[in-house]
Amino acid sequence: MPARPGPVLPTATARGALRPADEAVIDGGLWAERRAVNERTSVPDGYQRLVDAGNLHNLRLAAGTTTGSYVNELPFLDSDVYKWLEAVSWQLGDPATDPELAARLDERVTEIVGLLRDAQEPDGYLQSYYQVVRPDRRWQELDWGHELYCAGHLIQAAVARVRATGRTELLEIARKFADHIDSVFGPGRRDAVCGHPEIETALVELFRVTGEPRYLDLARFFVDRRGHGTLPPGRFGAGYWQDHAPVREAEAVTGHAVRQLYLLAGVVDVYAETGDDTLLAAGERLWEEMVARKSYVTGGLGAHHSDEAFGDPFELPSERAYTETCAAIAAVHLSWRLLLATGRARYADHLERVLYNGFLSGVGLDGEHYSYCNPLQVREGHRPDAQGGDHGAFRVRWFTCACCPPNVMRLLASLPHAFAASDGAGGLLVHQYAPGRFAADDLGVRVATDYPWQGRVSVEILEAPSDERALTLRVPHWAGEGWRLSVNGLPQDLAAEEGWLRLARRWQPGDSVVLEVDVAPRLTAPPSRADALRGCVAVERGPLVYCAEAADQPDGTVLDDLRLNAGAPLRDSAETDAPGVAVAVRATGTGRLPAADGWWAYPPHEAASAAERAAGDVELTLIPYHLWGHRDQGTMRVWLPV
Amino acid sequence: MPARPGPVLPTATARGALRPADEAVIDGGLWAERRAVNERTSVPDGYQRLVDAGNLHNLRLAAGTTTGSYVNELPFLDSDVYKWLEAVSWQLGDPATDPELAARLDERVTEIVGLLRDAQEPDGYLQSYYQVVRPDRRWQELDWGHELYCAGHLIQAAVARVRATGRTELLEIARKFADHIDSVFGPGRRDAVCGHPEIETALVELFRVTGEPRYLDLARFFVDRRGHGTLPPGRFGAGYWQDHAPVREAEAVTGHAVRQLYLLAGVVDVYAETGDDTLLAAGERLWEEMVARKSYVTGGLGAHHSDEAFGDPFELPSERAYTETCAAIAAVHLSWRLLLATGRARYADHLERVLYNGFLSGVGLDGEHYSYCNPLQVREGHRPDAQGGDHGAFRVRWFTCACCPPNVMRLLASLPHAFAASDGAGGLLVHQYAPGRFAADDLGVRVATDYPWQGRVSVEILEAPSDERALTLRVPHWAGEGWRLSVNGLPQDLAAEEGWLRLARRWQPGDSVVLEVDVAPRLTAPPSRADALRGCVAVERGPLVYCAEAADQPDGTVLDDLRLNAGAPLRDSAETDAPGVAVAVRATGTGRLPAADGWWAYPPHEAASAAERAAGDVELTLIPYHLWGHRDQGTMRVWLPV
Repeated sequence: MPARPGPVLPTATARGALRPADEAVIDGGLWAERRAVNERTSVPDGYQRLVDAGNLHNLRLAAGTTTGSYVNELPFLDSDVYKWLEAVSWQLGDPATDPELAARLDERVTEIVGLLRDAQEPDGYLQSYYQVVRPDRRWQELDWGHELYCAGHLIQAAVARVRATGRTELLEIARKFADHIDSVFGPGRRDAVCGHPEIETALVELFRVTGEPRYLDLARFFVDRRGHGTLPPGRFGAGYWQDHAPVREAEAVTGHAVRQLYLLAGVVDVYAETGDDTLLAAGERLWEEMVARKSYVTGGLGAHHSDEAFGDPFELPSERAYTETCAAIAAVHLSWRLLLATGRARYADHLERVLYNGFLSGVGLDGEHYSYCNPLQVREGHRPDAQGGDHGAFRVRWFTCACCPPNVMRLLASLPHAFAASDGAGGLLVHQYAPGRFAADDLGVRVATDYPWQGRVSVEILEAPSDERALTLRVPHWAGEGWRLSVNGLPQDLAAEEGWLRLARRWQPGDSVVLEVDVAPRLTAPPSRADALRGCVAVERGPLVYCAEAADQPDGTVLDDLRLNAGAPLRDSAETDAPGVAVAVRATGTGRLPAADGWWAYPPHEAASAAERAAGDVELTLIPYHLWGHRDQGTMRVWLPV
Repeated sequence: MPARPGPVLPTATARGALRPADEAVIDGGLWAERRAVNERTSVPDGYQRLVDAGNLHNLRLAAGTTTGSYVNELPFLDSDVYKWLEAVSWQLGDPATDPELAARLDERVTEIVGLLRDAQEPDGYLQSYYQVVRPDRRWQELDWGHELYCAGHLIQAAVARVRATGRTELLEIARKFADHIDSVFGPGRRDAVCGHPEIETALVELFRVTGEPRYLDLARFFVDRRGHGTLPPGRFGAGYWQDHAPVREAEAVTGHAVRQLYLLAGVVDVYAETGDDTLLAAGERLWEEMVARKSYVTGGLGAHHSDEAFGDPFELPSERAYTETCAAIAAVHLSWRLLLATGRARYADHLERVLYNGFLSGVGLDGEHYSYCNPLQVREGHRPDAQGGDHGAFRVRWFTCACCPPNVMRLLASLPHAFAASDGAGGLLVHQYAPGRFAADDLGVRVATDYPWQGRVSVEILEAPSDERALTLRVPHWAGEGWRLSVNGLPQDLAAEEGWLRLARRWQPGDSVVLEVDVAPRLTAPPSRADALRGCVAVERGPLVYCAEAADQPDGTVLDDLRLNAGAPLRDSAETDAPGVAVAVRATGTGRLPAADGWWAYPPHEAASAAERAAGDVELTLIPYHLWGHRDQGTMRVWLPV
């Protein structure tokens, strides 16, 4: 069986502990719902958004098929078109897609491919901004020009179209551009890199679908030449675009989070196809530094608004978290690649955390409203119009710099691909839990579960070869010892090995494996160096981070003046009218009235707690963080003082 | 006796509880030292910095006396020249200025005035950026163009030169520009405001020196027309430039901190000269909202890097505080004006806090190194190159957008002006304490003190008329009941009235008043809603906020892992080799080792504190916050966990 179409399909000779599964279908539960909305609303709507925002108009200007001014003069607008093409391609690769819709979407793609063909220069160059607005500056502004970045997204769209539909017309355009790039950059040619990584991972994928080693060489060249100061330092410093140190030597993630993560995805891809171990070591080292010191509990990444960047270690303010949706998506790209490369469960754990929290908060239940930033707190007195433009707004239709919405679409369209894997020895790993069918090397299973709302995961063997094969499940890291396993009804006394439960046997169709994970709500502490979170706890339940949103609390509750009673029990509650919430969590808190207002806010230490007065107990309701902001946008907190 | 030259000299008919003192000379102590460095180093050096940074070259381009490209294409570069001219003027108005230096500085001023005369258009327009770079866009880009902002600084420089030296040649240029502005903007002319307030306060001052009511009318027009959406909302929203609501209606300070504060300074100035009470009410209301909810303990203002703006209420992260030096300077402008307008001690208290902490940290002891931002924490692992360009760097020579250094110079040069006032009834208020001479209406005093290091303030009457006059001193708000007063050696049983000690009597030369304020180190708590500060205390001593800097701690101390023992005594210590520190404070803390590193930073709540281990007691040394960063730049904390 050929591997299911999806991003990251290593070649047969590639290094890696795991390989993508041959079949991965999600047909129920939370992700099926979200993917259905993505298919039926987000993706079709995306075309109209690209029309309205001028992206297609700008390409027509480059093609010479229309006249007028370039709309929204930003150099990276083409990339939104490409991300949307990629999303459509993965969607068309899903045989469950509504055929009428598929035909309509394919028409749009054909239209845009034609447009791109018309816009492409005879030498292969293609980027509407430089063709229309600054034709004399082509390849002259690599720091902010985003030319190779856009090329990367074009290539990824072309790869998706080939893998998902077998159609090569977009690939021809992408190859022509890639060949042009290869003629300009590389050893003996220009020694330079793009301000925004992306081309690296794309070129490895292009190598994978074409077999052309020049593309892999060029990817490796771009990976290796970053960190040698070929870019100007710019207003945010060289670390902003990871040009301060070669990736093999870097000790910490720095700068713009999406740039850093796209770079690392490419680094792991180059490792996979070349076996260059220091690249994998760099990917693992930087991932670990990032996750242990610069990640929000939601998996969100990037603390700074001004440069969309990682902060210092443990600089994790809740209200001013940038935590861009695209950074979460990029973290999924990276952890998926690291999981394939190493087989380590922590990457699947991280993937889960990001998916259910920091990523999923970025798209509304209706599939038409997005958040660019995903902060963990909205304060009393918050001014939505004072958060740095539309990036600071929540649940909006589109952004001036769109970026996140089509990125959401391409991830949801290809999501099942990242739920299971082949162990490379004929076995199947199911590491993310959703109802559906998963198979590798003739070992096929059906998963039934109400995950993430409930912790029971039932796996039925659908088909199995006659020899011994391993079925491997993941014990989520948040579960600790709170799990049990049975096979055909018999409890199994099996130890988890670094997060994995590996069951090797001769499977029969009908065999049943049940993993039960304790998803009871629990309190989580912050790292001790995270000043912004000191004295607080978060409520988690299963893989979901919860939050308290004003709309769910008793009238008069002021979230910013509340203390959670950490000793009181947390209880599940199905009684909630919060949209999309299957299980809410109830907790008790105590209101604290701050001292009477004076002109100065900083009292003597000895008088401070005496001045605060208790204001009665409150029963609090918490909902999954990813569902916040679906009603009137009031205050919200993930971290609650105790 | 004429009022001492300085900014804000209300007309004879102006409203206001107080008026500037007639004499204000600081001749010893901390401020005399800083002012001497300002005179001998900063101001002379400033000229060379303006040459090197291209500001004068750009004006020469506008004058047509040189050729080449406009350097550092920013629209507000002229304002740095004007702020420097203002600084020189106040310095020349100080008779203690070294005569040779004064002559040299005056030559520079004459040179620049000639340059400005050459650059000014026949219609009075003058801004090098629009004259050279975008001549077709004059007055067309009011949002970001800074034309009226630059004009305001030109006017302030001209006002300073007239007041301090009687020379009017710069005033002629400023008036010509102001008349041009008045022909373009106003009722029946263009209904518009500048993206950056500043012209308002400047026009009131121009009215004061010229008596021309058109300038006052135009100032009022600009104050009143802001808040009506004449500016585009821009990427940061209308609140960024306070155009979201008329100032009379605004309930909260918003947006760019310096813009907000310069606007409010103008609002209070217009009140003073028109008696328009709703303007004073707005100024007091917004000041109170700002100080009670958006001020750092240092008096620093502005939490956001991206838009240099106020955050939401109690959004006060220590490590990512923007707290621009110019915002502190602007807060001094505002509080000084509100003090004059109302006579309320809280404005003098605030002025003191800002001066000694949030402002003074912005300039190094050498007078050659500046900080644009004044954060309250530098973390372990901080990357100075990843803080948003040179604004995020500490103790540097100059900035791409210079802004703060010449603003520091003009404040220090005119500082004594803001230390004392006439009570409007023949009495003298001394509200800031420094060695020197202060006088109002023939009541003259000499102050001797080691403030802020010690709390004894000795005031000797130098001259007094024969009738009863009031000498009024301020009890700093941080002192609480910790003060005592004597007159001619006799303890006085006098209650402070809202911060003031008013002594009305027939004074004789030689009479002595001694105020002793308790400056013992004390612990201060954060406001309960300030999440970033929860569980922490700050150490203050007198008017000074202290901080722990790595250089002063025992080897191996990791400030981010330390807990202050709040129950242990704080002790003064003169044993310190930290530059500029007369009194350090010793405290004890306990090191806490965080739990062993794992890949995930968020432990279960019940396991979190158990995982932390004590790591021994440490004797900590704290130094005044404003002196941090004078050695190797290591970690630093104002707020210490307890």
